[in-house]
Amino acid sequence: MKSTLECIPCLIRQSLEATSCSFKDEALRENAVRKVTRLIADIDFRSTPPEMARDIHRLLRAESGVADPYRQIKDRFNALALKLIPRFRAVIRESADPLLDAVRLAIAGNVIDSGAKTSLSEDEVETAMDRAFETELHGDFDSFRAKVLNADSILYLTDNAGEIVFDGPLIELLPGNVTVAVRGFPVINDATIEDALTAGIDSAADIISNGSDAPGTILADCSEEFISLFQSADLVIAKGQGNYETLSDCGRPVSFLFKVKCPVIADHTGLKPGTHALLSDN
Amino acid sequence: MKSTLECIPCLIRQSLEATSCSFKDEALRENAVRKVTRLIADIDFRSTPPEMARDIHRLLRAESGVADPYRQIKDRFNALALKLIPRFRAVIRESADPLLDAVRLAIAGNVIDSGAKTSLSEDEVETAMDRAFETELHGDFDSFRAKVLNADSILYLTDNAGEIVFDGPLIELLPGNVTVAVRGFPVINDATIEDALTAGIDSAADIISNGSDAPGTILADCSEEFISLFQSADLVIAKGQGNYETLSDCGRPVSFLFKVKCPVIADHTGLKPGTHALLSDN
Repeated sequence: MKSTLECIPCLIRQSLEATSCSFKDEALRENAVRKVTRLIADIDFRSTPPEMARDIHRLLRAESGVADPYRQIKDRFNALALKLIPRFRAVIRESADPLLDAVRLAIAGNVIDSGAKTSLSEDEVETAMDRAFETELHGDFDSFRAKVLNADSILYLTDNAGEIVFDGPLIELLPGNVTVAVRGFPVINDATIEDALTAGIDSAADIISNGSDAPGTILADCSEEFISLFQSADLVIAKGQGNYETLSDCGRPVSFLFKVKCPVIADHTGLKPGTHALLSDN
Repeated sequence: MKSTLECIPCLIRQSLEATSCSFKDEALRENAVRKVTRLIADIDFRSTPPEMARDIHRLLRAESGVADPYRQIKDRFNALALKLIPRFRAVIRESADPLLDAVRLAIAGNVIDSGAKTSLSEDEVETAMDRAFETELHGDFDSFRAKVLNADSILYLTDNAGEIVFDGPLIELLPGNVTVAVRGFPVINDATIEDALTAGIDSAADIISNGSDAPGTILADCSEEFISLFQSADLVIAKGQGNYETLSDCGRPVSFLFKVKCPVIADHTGLKPGTHALLSDN
């Protein structure tokens, strides 16, 4: 999907958070923010939001020399998720429909998104997660279940650190050959290999990097290995708004699991902000 | 007070709302937003937020040719406030401390601020106003009461359309010579003479324009008549964040009545967002 002018405040907000993590000197930070603002003034709004964010965060990394400004934030939310997950695993273990409840948990975990909200607190995450199994799920779960059960190979595209811990129970329930893909390089709080290992995903699936530094899945940026898996998998499951924004027009069926977090996505999907969505584009 | 980098997303958000009101052609709107974004990239952050907003809205008016993009929004909130005010007047009439309750009402009315929030709904305003008399008032009301009772001349600086209706009961209770000042020209949803007349303020006080097109009180921009009153009044009461941002360092005592609505003001005042504040800078 294309970006809109309404994406600008959010992109600048992201830049302010990223620079507050990566610059100690306020004058250097101001200089970097001015450069980002100039970049946005001339940006191509026909590109997707994650393409714009990719270019912005490349510029910010070049200005600051800090490769991974969100490392501390990612560690904090991984730790929080690992602290919270046992109680959710217990619910899924006792559930009459573990796959459904694991999907609910994975979507609820998508609340941990520094791209959509600055200064997300641990209390906010805990409150949102406590409603994981009560929040209405928008989408055709029965059709999703049938796809899962019929798939011999599944590619699961993760979104953010912390969130990836809550993907664990769902990934463990998927049948056949399951590969979990993470971003190739740090960008915002998106999960990389390090986070997948922290979340223990390697005990349930193969993990690969997508080879890209975008907060979404821009196929033109991804590695050949990733693209080959993406094209050949029986089912692709993609978490989060960034993957939806970059893959909703990609031509092959993808099942998207995400929480609607911004007015632009709400407008595009016709779903209210806050909706827990399971969308399939076929 | 000076601006901060954190003001940028808010200034762009304001521009998006203003241009959605003033441009029918999306390409022309995009061009105007790109120009604003470039202006912000080079702006002087030592200026106050209303100085930056003044320059941005001047540029937007020049681009669109629309002098008053918020006219419909202002009319809508004036009408809502006029519909709601009888029940609040009844409370103040029966109150054991009418001045205190009129101050509470005036501060609660400061929720009607298109500068601080895009797409403010009538429901949000009504919900906020219903809590007008319950919300804790931060500040030294007894000292404010003494200043009011000792003043022979009071200058009351209004903030927004709609809100100005809720200033009415307080203005009516002020003793001595009371002059109410509004913005000289339309900017965002700030009240001008037209709104003061719609609110019926002319039955209780003299009304003057401050001569400026800024969403605050930039003395260097104001008319001689206004500056003379500002310097000579026994008491100046100023509504809203914009007046606080421009007058908190002005050198003469001012009593500020406003609702804390953004993290920058929260940081500057040490008060949480949502606080109903009565601050005196002497």
